[in-house]
Amino acid sequence: MTLITLPQILAARETLAGYLHRTPTATSTYLGGQLDLNLYFKLELLQKTGSFKPRGVLNRMQHLSADEKARGVITLSAGNAAQAVAWAAKQAGVAATVVMPAGAVQSKVEATRGYGGEVIQTAKSLLDTCLTIQRERNLTLVHPFDDLHLIAGHGTAGLELLEDVPHVDVVIVGVGGGGLISGVAAALKSQRPSVKVIGVEPEGASAMTQSLAKGEPVHLSSVNTIADGLAAPFAGQYTLAHVQAYVDEVVLVSDEAISEALGLILERCKVLAEPAAASTLAALWSGAIKLTPGSTVVCILSGGNIDRATLKQLL
Amino acid sequence: MTLITLPQILAARETLAGYLHRTPTATSTYLGGQLDLNLYFKLELLQKTGSFKPRGVLNRMQHLSADEKARGVITLSAGNAAQAVAWAAKQAGVAATVVMPAGAVQSKVEATRGYGGEVIQTAKSLLDTCLTIQRERNLTLVHPFDDLHLIAGHGTAGLELLEDVPHVDVVIVGVGGGGLISGVAAALKSQRPSVKVIGVEPEGASAMTQSLAKGEPVHLSSVNTIADGLAAPFAGQYTLAHVQAYVDEVVLVSDEAISEALGLILERCKVLAEPAAASTLAALWSGAIKLTPGSTVVCILSGGNIDRATLKQLL
Repeated sequence: MTLITLPQILAARETLAGYLHRTPTATSTYLGGQLDLNLYFKLELLQKTGSFKPRGVLNRMQHLSADEKARGVITLSAGNAAQAVAWAAKQAGVAATVVMPAGAVQSKVEATRGYGGEVIQTAKSLLDTCLTIQRERNLTLVHPFDDLHLIAGHGTAGLELLEDVPHVDVVIVGVGGGGLISGVAAALKSQRPSVKVIGVEPEGASAMTQSLAKGEPVHLSSVNTIADGLAAPFAGQYTLAHVQAYVDEVVLVSDEAISEALGLILERCKVLAEPAAASTLAALWSGAIKLTPGSTVVCILSGGNIDRATLKQLL
Repeated sequence: MTLITLPQILAARETLAGYLHRTPTATSTYLGGQLDLNLYFKLELLQKTGSFKPRGVLNRMQHLSADEKARGVITLSAGNAAQAVAWAAKQAGVAATVVMPAGAVQSKVEATRGYGGEVIQTAKSLLDTCLTIQRERNLTLVHPFDDLHLIAGHGTAGLELLEDVPHVDVVIVGVGGGGLISGVAAALKSQRPSVKVIGVEPEGASAMTQSLAKGEPVHLSSVNTIADGLAAPFAGQYTLAHVQAYVDEVVLVSDEAISEALGLILERCKVLAEPAAASTLAALWSGAIKLTPGSTVVCILSGGNIDRATLKQLL
């Protein structure tokens, strides 16, 4: 299986220059002190569209042929990729259609429309619906996570992280389809093989954990977690290969631990981490990840897209 | 009346170097689009202790004599200055006592204790209690806002703002005692006199508005606002002089407008602005401030210290 390389990630950074934010890194003396760690947070929630997703998506979009662009793109997503595809398509002057679940977070649906995307919501299989419409309308499929250009784009977050915290020992990343952790792990391990990369999945959506155990992508019949950003029902071929090659460990966390971590991040770091992002601190706070005291750790806060009503419930 | 000068603010930056964060600036395409402005937010809520306060307080602390330091310091505060004084005292190796209201935000009380400060809560007059204890214990009084070293320290936020958004037309700042707006306005007007600086007070705590009208510091018999960070019951002598000299306008906003703005900032910018900070967007969103379309505007988000329970109520 092909794995992305550092030159591809560096090229992605060139492609994305000027379109995206270089997101800052924050600390919390209190949270770090409680955990006995030098704790940093990479604030991808301040990225355009409120998540890391446009890094990969825009890189994917810029590698489409003129014909593929002219036909318009389609993707499927619970939300963050939806917004990112609509936003990136607008930057690239391409029409975007996004298939989203009937119960998608309303603010993500509205934001996707706000960026000019056509949203089609369905209670049926997202993938089947997406592929049917793609054939009917002859659209270009943009995969929400299992794509090498996408993974290379996400890897740019890893480059920035290493610049900001060069002495990092451990990086913790939430795992949905696995696009972000694949890119970040490739960027880190190709430069600093000693850095440990740990993935976090919700107990109710453990596709990657199961895929690693089985040695091939596992499709879940259902998922059940508050972390909609990590609720991908299957791991990708490419992402599984990257996780197998570059990720040291994948751990599971409960929704309760995620809620608690979300509140702590909000109160102590003053930023709104959506549940997918809060899962990283949840893994430390709940003890699912145990590290040598004094380790320097970066949690990637992958996004901040959460409805006000949902937030109110979780607090 | 003496006003601080640019060299004093530049000197404060030297004094503070290495102790404090250089806070980033964020944008919201959505909020800016709705208001027809190029809208930026200066994220002082990411500053150490969760507010801009340590800029001024640490600068004050570093200008104390050896004797003043040895005696220990005392201040009075609803919360943000309390935390900042406790934190800055710890940096400077000085003992800190802080007089806080009986009903102070609990997380601010805990954070102040967490930084090593002794907290004395009282239902009586903060100022009287503070001055009594100061005399009894022979402590060094550090004023929470009306001090030239303090104002110079706060001005460093203005230096950063102008570096990040050099083409800024208008800067909006919440006004409690007036320390932040005094320093920021001095930093801006001494470098770019054309920049407009607008202050925002809650309707229920309009000490500066009334002081400007009367031409001298007015003491309010009571204050009533959700913006505890802006609930100072009087303007300072120094701060009033700076506002008279450098601030173009001070407007009033309702608590309802502040709540709405807090939610918008959280949802759209992914950061937790406390009510005092959200007052800046509230003034734009409610129409209290009307600007030329297309103007480049920076709202200073002065802090993010708010209880989880209070936040839940406001959402």
